[in-house]
Amino acid sequence: MRLPPCRIDLYIFRDDRFIILRMAADTPAPRRRGRPTKTREALLETREALLRAGLEVLTEKGFSASGLDEILRRAGVPKGSFYHYFENKDAFGQALITRYADYFACKLERHFSNTTRAPLARIRDAIADLQAGMLRHEFRRGCLVGNLGQEMGSLPEPFRAQLSDVFADWQQRLARCLREAQAGGEIPEHIDCDEAAAFFWIGWEGAVLRAKLERRMAPLELFVRYFFAGLHVTE
Amino acid sequence: MRLPPCRIDLYIFRDDRFIILRMAADTPAPRRRGRPTKTREALLETREALLRAGLEVLTEKGFSASGLDEILRRAGVPKGSFYHYFENKDAFGQALITRYADYFACKLERHFSNTTRAPLARIRDAIADLQAGMLRHEFRRGCLVGNLGQEMGSLPEPFRAQLSDVFADWQQRLARCLREAQAGGEIPEHIDCDEAAAFFWIGWEGAVLRAKLERRMAPLELFVRYFFAGLHVTE
Repeated sequence: MRLPPCRIDLYIFRDDRFIILRMAADTPAPRRRGRPTKTREALLETREALLRAGLEVLTEKGFSASGLDEILRRAGVPKGSFYHYFENKDAFGQALITRYADYFACKLERHFSNTTRAPLARIRDAIADLQAGMLRHEFRRGCLVGNLGQEMGSLPEPFRAQLSDVFADWQQRLARCLREAQAGGEIPEHIDCDEAAAFFWIGWEGAVLRAKLERRMAPLELFVRYFFAGLHVTE
Repeated sequence: MRLPPCRIDLYIFRDDRFIILRMAADTPAPRRRGRPTKTREALLETREALLRAGLEVLTEKGFSASGLDEILRRAGVPKGSFYHYFENKDAFGQALITRYADYFACKLERHFSNTTRAPLARIRDAIADLQAGMLRHEFRRGCLVGNLGQEMGSLPEPFRAQLSDVFADWQQRLARCLREAQAGGEIPEHIDCDEAAAFFWIGWEGAVLRAKLERRMAPLELFVRYFFAGLHVTE
């Protein structure tokens, strides 16, 4: 049974305690009534641990191949209590996309807004940061949004708009920085910065896929070199 | 128990008939002894049907999300008889990669070897053919090799070399055609055709991912435009 979005938490009473049935959309963690086993802070901490473990596993394996068991084990959360924190695996997936998108946007902006560097150098800094992340995890972890985008054929339909929106957001952030580069004369006037930014994220996800497959930096480096060459900037 | 590669078919006897336990590496379909229920031709036909259904499902959903049940249902093969044709899901996956790679290489060569067209026009023809395929399946089906490359984190390790080899093969085929274009003066001397071909397949897979996600041609078109611009060829 699909319930409509609700503004209050719904519970059922089972095994001598209340179990959350449906969490209000704007509630970050469930409040349990009945036997108070955990404080709200402890619940939030557990929810955090689940999100962290979920991000680790899904950036490596994608959604379909990721078992909840593995995520629960990594988070140290007992099996069976997952549904205290998330309605189902889909709701968990959507929370993970939001979390990853926020984290990634923050990482990009840290570089793109660094006015001590010229705009193109900021873009190179951001790319170097992403490449260092791939290397740190030995090319096992890719991009959560790319992984799920690839898997869209078997994912719940609401994921589609959410993933597209994330790409659109990254594209806008990059386009803004490219326009700053253009305004400063670093790239020629005729370049369409929105298109160039769209091209970047399209190709970047392909390069991440190949870097993971071949466990090496070369595909990322090659793509980045062509990207800058396309801006009529030689390395 | 993992058995070493064998040169003869191994069977067990159960329920009044012989069931294949392990097929010789170079045998395209099992020969069953005991009650002869199917001819060799019928067995080959069923194996073909399984491969066709597998390709359909895996190009849509990837490996992890594809249930054998769905593939068997599409192929009209009764559950339980799968292991007459393939040792396990992994062996099936590897047979599917080989089949897809052969099909794709054949499609590429049909265009790349078409000497009635100039080399760059042949490349555009091949791309148009791939794009038409995406459109025909309403952007639901992507590239089997791209799907599995993305999923490599959860796939059996032997898939890695097999998938890398497929990309290397496509790259060589494209590079040959680019060199013909270069020899004919269609692209400048300074272009490194091997690198350009590597760049193409890296970005193409990213574009396929986005086209599937957004269910539209635009990401493929944008990538292709940048690819040709990178060859210093304007559209």
